[in-house]
Amino acid sequence: MRTFTRLLCAVVFVTTVHGQPPDPLPSWNDGSIKQRIVGFVGTVTDPARTDFVPPAERIAVFDNDGTLWAEQPIYVQFAFALDRVTALAPSHPEWKTEPPFNAVLNGDMKAIAASGESGLVKILMATHTGTTTDEFRSSVSDWMEHAEHPRFKRPYTDLVYRPMLELLAYLRDNGFKPYIVSGGTAEFMRAWSEGSYRIPPEQVIGTTFVTTFQPQPNGAPGLVREPKIEFVDDGAGKPVAIQKYVGRRPIFAVGNSDGDLQMLEWTAAGPGARFVALVHHTDERREWAYDRRSHIGRLDAALDEAMAKHWAVIDMKEDWNRVFPFEEGTR
Amino acid sequence: MRTFTRLLCAVVFVTTVHGQPPDPLPSWNDGSIKQRIVGFVGTVTDPARTDFVPPAERIAVFDNDGTLWAEQPIYVQFAFALDRVTALAPSHPEWKTEPPFNAVLNGDMKAIAASGESGLVKILMATHTGTTTDEFRSSVSDWMEHAEHPRFKRPYTDLVYRPMLELLAYLRDNGFKPYIVSGGTAEFMRAWSEGSYRIPPEQVIGTTFVTTFQPQPNGAPGLVREPKIEFVDDGAGKPVAIQKYVGRRPIFAVGNSDGDLQMLEWTAAGPGARFVALVHHTDERREWAYDRRSHIGRLDAALDEAMAKHWAVIDMKEDWNRVFPFEEGTR
Repeated sequence: MRTFTRLLCAVVFVTTVHGQPPDPLPSWNDGSIKQRIVGFVGTVTDPARTDFVPPAERIAVFDNDGTLWAEQPIYVQFAFALDRVTALAPSHPEWKTEPPFNAVLNGDMKAIAASGESGLVKILMATHTGTTTDEFRSSVSDWMEHAEHPRFKRPYTDLVYRPMLELLAYLRDNGFKPYIVSGGTAEFMRAWSEGSYRIPPEQVIGTTFVTTFQPQPNGAPGLVREPKIEFVDDGAGKPVAIQKYVGRRPIFAVGNSDGDLQMLEWTAAGPGARFVALVHHTDERREWAYDRRSHIGRLDAALDEAMAKHWAVIDMKEDWNRVFPFEEGTR
Repeated sequence: MRTFTRLLCAVVFVTTVHGQPPDPLPSWNDGSIKQRIVGFVGTVTDPARTDFVPPAERIAVFDNDGTLWAEQPIYVQFAFALDRVTALAPSHPEWKTEPPFNAVLNGDMKAIAASGESGLVKILMATHTGTTTDEFRSSVSDWMEHAEHPRFKRPYTDLVYRPMLELLAYLRDNGFKPYIVSGGTAEFMRAWSEGSYRIPPEQVIGTTFVTTFQPQPNGAPGLVREPKIEFVDDGAGKPVAIQKYVGRRPIFAVGNSDGDLQMLEWTAAGPGARFVALVHHTDERREWAYDRRSHIGRLDAALDEAMAKHWAVIDMKEDWNRVFPFEEGTR
């Protein structure tokens, strides 16, 4: 009996180590969430199942901030905007005394916050518009190369979640087409989404500015970003944007905040098998812990609905054995 | 010597018939246009060339009406709208006396034309909005199955151009991603673009209506098409839409009318090799002949610019040995 047990163990070991394909999701702990992901992908890719979905219809949508990368202590795009005010200040001497720009130049976060939505919009317009799309993209790329996250002292693009990179690769390997659907502005994300997530610009949906086609000083045509929001890709805007850009209802959706609720509802309400999930930030040590009362990425109504409808709630602390690519495994 | 010549001929014959890959563009006559297409594709796909373009950046854009399928005697989408008025008339008794609907119901094309832009917009809104996106799509699919082109007595989807189907396939086989960029409305085209062109909905860019996310009577969320144009994808709107949806500048563009001019200019002005072309309708017998003075698909300023800038001008009569898939070769 003892020999048999040993033999059995050896067979199990060999099967596990040599006979099985490598785990496509090594940063995900074994548990119900990982099982649901693998089970769902197995179901919709199996032509023998009634829930089979042809590859062309395997649309997956992901929120970006707080879902694919960290969004604390402030949205990365807002960090870009603040640094850009400083960079542009020499050509705007009036900003020294003009709120909210003077608050930005003095690093006075309290005064920036006090400037409210109208202040934030002023900062956004001054830093994100008035240039051609090519110029804007360069300004983002340049910044991303040099900027550093205040807590981790690393490039912001290091703050992508390793389990989500694995999930994106796993979905792609199974014929899915992953899209970003974010409240952030599209062109900001497109400057680095391909390098960081392997998501090309045409699969990045975000908030947009009115853009106009105009000849430039050198005579060549240019696309100029006007200081006017065209479309806000948040909340109920997300399913609308998905239909506009993709023209199909997703079968797989992940978000992390109330701004993702309608995108998850829209995905969940389609026929056949669906995978709908929230990332719940529960790991103060490795990342951050926040939900119902956070100013950034508030997760309240969507958490209630996820629990009521049995959507997958990814517990960052419990479900991920690594959070960032630079981290060693901790469990 | 004679034997040698015969041998040479035999070798040439064998190489041509058996040794060469089949012509990917058999409906295109040998000539400068076909040479330019094949030469361009060869250049940008050859990693040894300085003009090499990585597959991810091989974006091709095509106008739809008059470029990929026939647009005479009226735009297909307008034919749909007119038939849809008739189909909806039983629930709109007021249309019997209300212009322009009464003109549509009486088949009075002159009165419809006299109703001007405001009349056309009324017809468009009544037939294209007020439903969910799913319902609208069904109405297009149903119509397309039964409607018939007035001249050819065939389904409208038979009126796609065979040379363009070959070109789309040739581009796809060479790693290009073809997009439709049309003044027609996106959801109208998406109902049949995959079946007719193998172009999936996410590669169909068109004019859009404001759409809202709303719970439907059955409680499920729905996307409702509102009677308000959101974006007109024509003229200067085309490069704007390409940047919004694709986020990259195309390297290959084909149009057929002045509404395509800015799309062609935007494509042509990028760095590296570019292919920019117009379809010139010159074949009254097999299709139609029209250009500078046509009410539909007017080609005037764009033709001048194409000639000045040496863009490819596809002469339908000379360059295409077949126009429609149902036709036998005629040359």
